[in-house]
Amino acid sequence: MSVTGRELRSRIDEDGRLTLSLEQVETGDPGPDELLVRIEAAPVNPSDLGLLLGPADLATMRPLGEGRTGLVLDVPPGRMGAVKPRLGQSLPVGNEGAGTVVAAGANAAGLVGRRVGMIGGAMFADYRRIKARDVIPLPDGASAADGAAMFVNPLTALGFVETARMEGHRAIVHTAAASNLGQMLQRICTADGVPLVNIVRSPEQAALLRDLGATHVLNSRAPDFTARLTDAIAQTGATIAFDAIGGGTLGGDILAAMERAAVRGMTEYSRYGSDTFKQLYVYGALDLAPLTLNRLAFGFRWSVSGWLLFPFLQRAGAEVAARLRARVAAELTTTFASRYSRTIGLADALDPDTLRAYERKATGEKVLIDPTLG
Amino acid sequence: MSVTGRELRSRIDEDGRLTLSLEQVETGDPGPDELLVRIEAAPVNPSDLGLLLGPADLATMRPLGEGRTGLVLDVPPGRMGAVKPRLGQSLPVGNEGAGTVVAAGANAAGLVGRRVGMIGGAMFADYRRIKARDVIPLPDGASAADGAAMFVNPLTALGFVETARMEGHRAIVHTAAASNLGQMLQRICTADGVPLVNIVRSPEQAALLRDLGATHVLNSRAPDFTARLTDAIAQTGATIAFDAIGGGTLGGDILAAMERAAVRGMTEYSRYGSDTFKQLYVYGALDLAPLTLNRLAFGFRWSVSGWLLFPFLQRAGAEVAARLRARVAAELTTTFASRYSRTIGLADALDPDTLRAYERKATGEKVLIDPTLG
Repeated sequence: MSVTGRELRSRIDEDGRLTLSLEQVETGDPGPDELLVRIEAAPVNPSDLGLLLGPADLATMRPLGEGRTGLVLDVPPGRMGAVKPRLGQSLPVGNEGAGTVVAAGANAAGLVGRRVGMIGGAMFADYRRIKARDVIPLPDGASAADGAAMFVNPLTALGFVETARMEGHRAIVHTAAASNLGQMLQRICTADGVPLVNIVRSPEQAALLRDLGATHVLNSRAPDFTARLTDAIAQTGATIAFDAIGGGTLGGDILAAMERAAVRGMTEYSRYGSDTFKQLYVYGALDLAPLTLNRLAFGFRWSVSGWLLFPFLQRAGAEVAARLRARVAAELTTTFASRYSRTIGLADALDPDTLRAYERKATGEKVLIDPTLG
Repeated sequence: MSVTGRELRSRIDEDGRLTLSLEQVETGDPGPDELLVRIEAAPVNPSDLGLLLGPADLATMRPLGEGRTGLVLDVPPGRMGAVKPRLGQSLPVGNEGAGTVVAAGANAAGLVGRRVGMIGGAMFADYRRIKARDVIPLPDGASAADGAAMFVNPLTALGFVETARMEGHRAIVHTAAASNLGQMLQRICTADGVPLVNIVRSPEQAALLRDLGATHVLNSRAPDFTARLTDAIAQTGATIAFDAIGGGTLGGDILAAMERAAVRGMTEYSRYGSDTFKQLYVYGALDLAPLTLNRLAFGFRWSVSGWLLFPFLQRAGAEVAARLRARVAAELTTTFASRYSRTIGLADALDPDTLRAYERKATGEKVLIDPTLG
């Protein structure tokens, strides 16, 4: 069985035009180990936006014209270098999703009719042909919305805690902490007894995390933020931070606070700073500005690194990955519950106002695409 | 035997004044495992300047007054936070040096009369009492100047090559590459067959390295620098860089060039960038400005970390450290030869013009202190 359906595509051409469109594509027959899934829910993650919108300037957004459904945006010339490898390619979008299996190859026939969560890209579409090993059947009674985001955020949040353990850190600092991911991280840390210092940008976000049982919640816009951050780090012993923002000075400010907390315990001055090793992992790019590190404030015992889910899973090994996936499935509607502020159809995903809302990336604004809505 | 001699001291007080002075101090008798060494040569390394001048503003330099030998400088209020742990302490300066053993404890009596290289601080002084294990006897015929810098630069240069090997990198990028350290690194890499990409700031520095046999020497001020850097990285496969500058955009530019070189070999676009892990180690602070990382240009597979000699030696272990020290002793006047543009007395070290020359930190300007000159 092969079906035809819509697929959201993003393409950047040599002339700097980024085109978003819905293309009609045929899925092709599932192979022996493959499934054909009708997609019923796919979250718009910040990690999808990098592919969807690239480094385009949203102020230039305009209809595709010529009666076709779609949008065009301009990429500023100075940012074209970074997207050179994708020029001219019509790229499908959407890391993960969930839906119902409508057909299957011989080796996966038992899954027909089951609802599954999936990872692998091209989820902003009506249908997805996919290898059976890249899906997880949902527990009975779980909706497609429940299973739509069971990979990226849950495994990332678990991955932070595993990384901290593997590298010998006692406590964690997290930015943009009121996100769905941040809420999962707080629930995991509460359950596992790992001290967590949450950094948010508003009193509302702080209240949301406190309702989940968070002990340390700091508003980075508060006048006493720096002093309170240093205190929270000194109390918890946090020496690792995960940063979703990636631009500006906050990441460096966290390292500086860790250094101040470490220096409090020192009896002898060293011009190289404390002996305490401080690790900042950048896992997102909510701020596209350069990352500015005032490293004089944190000595020489530090590292700032990119953090990505798939390299982490590779490094952790198959056994750890299987353990984490099993935990996600077991705690799908508790620890790993996601909330969405809106559910929209696939065509609505190309609505200019919706795209501007994505781009604001405001915590609490989280969109779920349900292609069956239109 | 205890003697009295001069010792250069740096002190920052609560009011933001940094005072440089020569103090008369008594060495005390050497213990059973200790030596008393008359210092005859001590290099002024960039790593000494952080302690000597702190974050003071050189434009404010003035005599100490009241008939005392010394200088006063002001530390800008915004930089006082970083030096809080040293406030009010009169700190001796000078990481390493060489001289003649004039007295020794019972267990080290055989070293009296020998010339030794030393590490351990407080070397800008007439005398140093030191543990015998912190010295290396110089080969016959080696001068104090030959042995004055046998620890920091040689072990750092060897440490770069060891670090690259330990972490699985094939080739190295080095900035401020015409320094004494950079010349040693080129000689080591030539001998060991490790490709090295040198970054300098002038044609004269480039010529100096080419005379040593360097293949890849790039002037960061040349208009085609970025393109040539990408080519050199693509040719050598360099994925690790050691950066003495530490501020501004050069470090990030190197990571971006590594990413461009990696992307050249990719057949499929990934919004997370290449799979190639890129490591930048910051080991110096020639530029005190913040480090600015335009990380959109290098994906998520990267790390920027501080690199310090002593943590490296600890991590590498006693066996590696002993092997490196033996190589330094064996190749002291060849691979690890240092050149000095001037030799000055201890009192001259407090001359304002000399201090301004330190602060310029221009490659090729390297000062040796010989306290026996006055």
